[in-house]
Amino acid sequence: MRAARGVTKGITVLAMAGLLLAACGTTGAGKPAAGDFPTQWLMYAGNPEHNAAFDVPATATKLLKGVQWKFAEANALPLAGPAADQDVLGLRAAPVKTTQFLGNSVGVTAVGGVIYAESDSNYVYAIDAITGKLIWKTPTNNAVMGNPIVAQGVVVVGAGDVGFSFAQVMKYAKHQPVLRGLGFAGIYGMDAKTGKVLWHVATVGEAMPSLAYKAGTVYEGTGDGHVYAWNIKTGAPRWKTRLGGFSSMSSGNLYKNQLLWGFTNPNFVYSIDVATGKVLWKQTVVGVANTGMGDNSPAVDSTKGIVIQDSIVDPKLVNGKPTVDSEVFAMDANAGGKILWQTRLGRGPNPPAYKAGVAMVHGGVIYVGSPATSQFFALDETTGKVLWKFEIPDHGPAGAGRGAGTFAHGTLWISQGPNVFALDPKSGTVLGHVRPGGRFGIVNPVIVGGTMYLGNSWGWIQALPLSSIYKGWQTRA
Amino acid sequence: MRAARGVTKGITVLAMAGLLLAACGTTGAGKPAAGDFPTQWLMYAGNPEHNAAFDVPATATKLLKGVQWKFAEANALPLAGPAADQDVLGLRAAPVKTTQFLGNSVGVTAVGGVIYAESDSNYVYAIDAITGKLIWKTPTNNAVMGNPIVAQGVVVVGAGDVGFSFAQVMKYAKHQPVLRGLGFAGIYGMDAKTGKVLWHVATVGEAMPSLAYKAGTVYEGTGDGHVYAWNIKTGAPRWKTRLGGFSSMSSGNLYKNQLLWGFTNPNFVYSIDVATGKVLWKQTVVGVANTGMGDNSPAVDSTKGIVIQDSIVDPKLVNGKPTVDSEVFAMDANAGGKILWQTRLGRGPNPPAYKAGVAMVHGGVIYVGSPATSQFFALDETTGKVLWKFEIPDHGPAGAGRGAGTFAHGTLWISQGPNVFALDPKSGTVLGHVRPGGRFGIVNPVIVGGTMYLGNSWGWIQALPLSSIYKGWQTRA
Repeated sequence: MRAARGVTKGITVLAMAGLLLAACGTTGAGKPAAGDFPTQWLMYAGNPEHNAAFDVPATATKLLKGVQWKFAEANALPLAGPAADQDVLGLRAAPVKTTQFLGNSVGVTAVGGVIYAESDSNYVYAIDAITGKLIWKTPTNNAVMGNPIVAQGVVVVGAGDVGFSFAQVMKYAKHQPVLRGLGFAGIYGMDAKTGKVLWHVATVGEAMPSLAYKAGTVYEGTGDGHVYAWNIKTGAPRWKTRLGGFSSMSSGNLYKNQLLWGFTNPNFVYSIDVATGKVLWKQTVVGVANTGMGDNSPAVDSTKGIVIQDSIVDPKLVNGKPTVDSEVFAMDANAGGKILWQTRLGRGPNPPAYKAGVAMVHGGVIYVGSPATSQFFALDETTGKVLWKFEIPDHGPAGAGRGAGTFAHGTLWISQGPNVFALDPKSGTVLGHVRPGGRFGIVNPVIVGGTMYLGNSWGWIQALPLSSIYKGWQTRA
Repeated sequence: MRAARGVTKGITVLAMAGLLLAACGTTGAGKPAAGDFPTQWLMYAGNPEHNAAFDVPATATKLLKGVQWKFAEANALPLAGPAADQDVLGLRAAPVKTTQFLGNSVGVTAVGGVIYAESDSNYVYAIDAITGKLIWKTPTNNAVMGNPIVAQGVVVVGAGDVGFSFAQVMKYAKHQPVLRGLGFAGIYGMDAKTGKVLWHVATVGEAMPSLAYKAGTVYEGTGDGHVYAWNIKTGAPRWKTRLGGFSSMSSGNLYKNQLLWGFTNPNFVYSIDVATGKVLWKQTVVGVANTGMGDNSPAVDSTKGIVIQDSIVDPKLVNGKPTVDSEVFAMDANAGGKILWQTRLGRGPNPPAYKAGVAMVHGGVIYVGSPATSQFFALDETTGKVLWKFEIPDHGPAGAGRGAGTFAHGTLWISQGPNVFALDPKSGTVLGHVRPGGRFGIVNPVIVGGTMYLGNSWGWIQALPLSSIYKGWQTRA
């Protein structure tokens, strides 16, 4: 099930996979591998659209039928149990702390028959996608909280944490620039086959966002207000640009020669020339609050050059309690980031930690959640009009709606709170659901053929057959 | 070399040790074990005076001659190499980050022939004091940065970190109370022989300070502004008192029925009734800056009821650069914390992170350093008058002077920056010095007989014969 096969057979299978891709109507920048898997993973959620769906050829019978396993990372909590320290921290704070400091903050990476995952407990894991067995695990010097980027046989991850020192606390109070990241921070390049650390570059601020890759270069936005470019093979620096403020969980994205990255304090989405590091344009909306722009990852419709970002806005007390609204907005990357539309998703209680939803774009529709209202939405990509909304159940006071959805086989799949749902993408009607244990932070389901791969806050990586969630998926393509 | 021996023999040896104690003139609340070691460790640095010196009987020939070994903890850096990420962080920040997130922040604990140490890399270690071999290591869910407390066969440590979330950053800017501690926090009670976790209590804020023990109860000051009391055997709560603000590295101390603890925001030293948790008195001085009171551990002269604290004060820009002064002050615990005297140690550059020195009291003299000036001082306990000062060499821009000194065998021993010194306690003259590798954070030397035990920021525990530092020590007693 690994990538390497004979060239001739590889081409044949690739052609088959191409037909299947067209037939299924899914989009995946990660091309099917020699046989049955993406061969690389270039940015958060696997492609600019954040649609982590990958077709496989008909010969990949196991993946099509759906494999099932679960892998417990170091420090994993019992799947049926509560969040860590829930007795003391309560239902609002405990899931957040567990997401930030124990398990997997975001979804996994699928490349060449291997599931790669980053854990807050300072490990990168490589798991056999079919068997669920550990291939390697490599320690890091702080939490790793993103999607591993895989290209040219190198796995690249960023380490860092969400914290501030007391010196930074005092600076913020004096309206001075602040640096995010408390412990060690930096980038690791690891051998994809063995996990051996090929290179390590320290950074002054945290390197929490998933990196982005293009043409031999990896890019990262950091807690000390920079975007950096390094050679993926060696870690040698190519350029760095100082933007100020910090990026936390806003992973980079790409459109043509533009690197797109969200930063906080000030709150902007920046477009940066991939070759030179020069800022091409920046954009924001009125009323962005907290770490709005720097915490959330912009999505890109590659075919149209539309960039989608969303952020909490307009915080205010309602009946003495803090509330926020959420705003989704579309920018035209071909017109200097001109705003095409802005849509408010509605007011709700100020959610803890990560306060926005990662958008996914597919077939002219934007799918995005809001942790303030714990709802999941479909919006028309051209107008921003809300097409439907889905009330996420079981969200608790921590809220849900953070992770991107995945469109595969004519079905929308989301992992929110403790549940995984199959939704009708036209109406938001529930087609099926399971509760696989633990809870999902900012997790997008990764779907390869008929198998869904998930990481969760409790420190588990799971493979689930789509059929175990929704039996009718094969009839909808 | 362990504690358990026949009762009769134990009593005999205890008597011998008592004679030796008297002969050597050292003070140690940790009583000599059945033979040759303290049997318990009740507060930071081993006794209220912070003088971690323990005599052994003449039969403990190995300890008297001095044993030598070094033990590398998980993630230990090469002893001859630089601080972690020094290439990027520089000489001011890299040693601090290494002290806070990699190795041992403070000195070790010596009980029953075992060296216990807490590591920022989330482990508690028990090492055979004679051979340097690992007895056990037990993981924790965050950094452990204090002295393990050992009593009734239980090792008690507090876990937590120095960080603040962005929500707390924003609160501080609005002059609202803030909580310190980013990741998981809480207290572990472990079996002293096996390291097995007997109980664990989560806390909302960090539990960085070393705990204090009295009569079956352990006490901790936390990042959410409380002092807690728990049963050492079970972790069952006895009382809690809300003081507000946070305690960071101010470890608790004891005098009669008074528990003494420093807190920040507001900055006070509190005296709390050990039985009820009621605040008996609180005290501060003018101009305390940063985390002054909550970061530093008050020392107590048990014979007189004098409490010594020091803190940075009066921050101001000098030639455009931030500077601070340091103030040492004495309080009368028998008179509601009445201030007896205040002494300024002098202005210097604002040091990174831990900004004060831990005081030690012995023979009517206070020994204390100042990281602002990187000097080490002796003060008259009655008047606060400076008797001498010693210029600490090799301190670099991170400064030195944080860890307490240790008075043993008529000699003052300090571990500051990369060096260990033997000083003449009457003049501050250097009698001997070694550079054992790595660097010392807030480390006090622990001296048992003729052996010095040290932890360092690089993640090593070391045993050094006193003779390797200063050959003449045996002639001074």
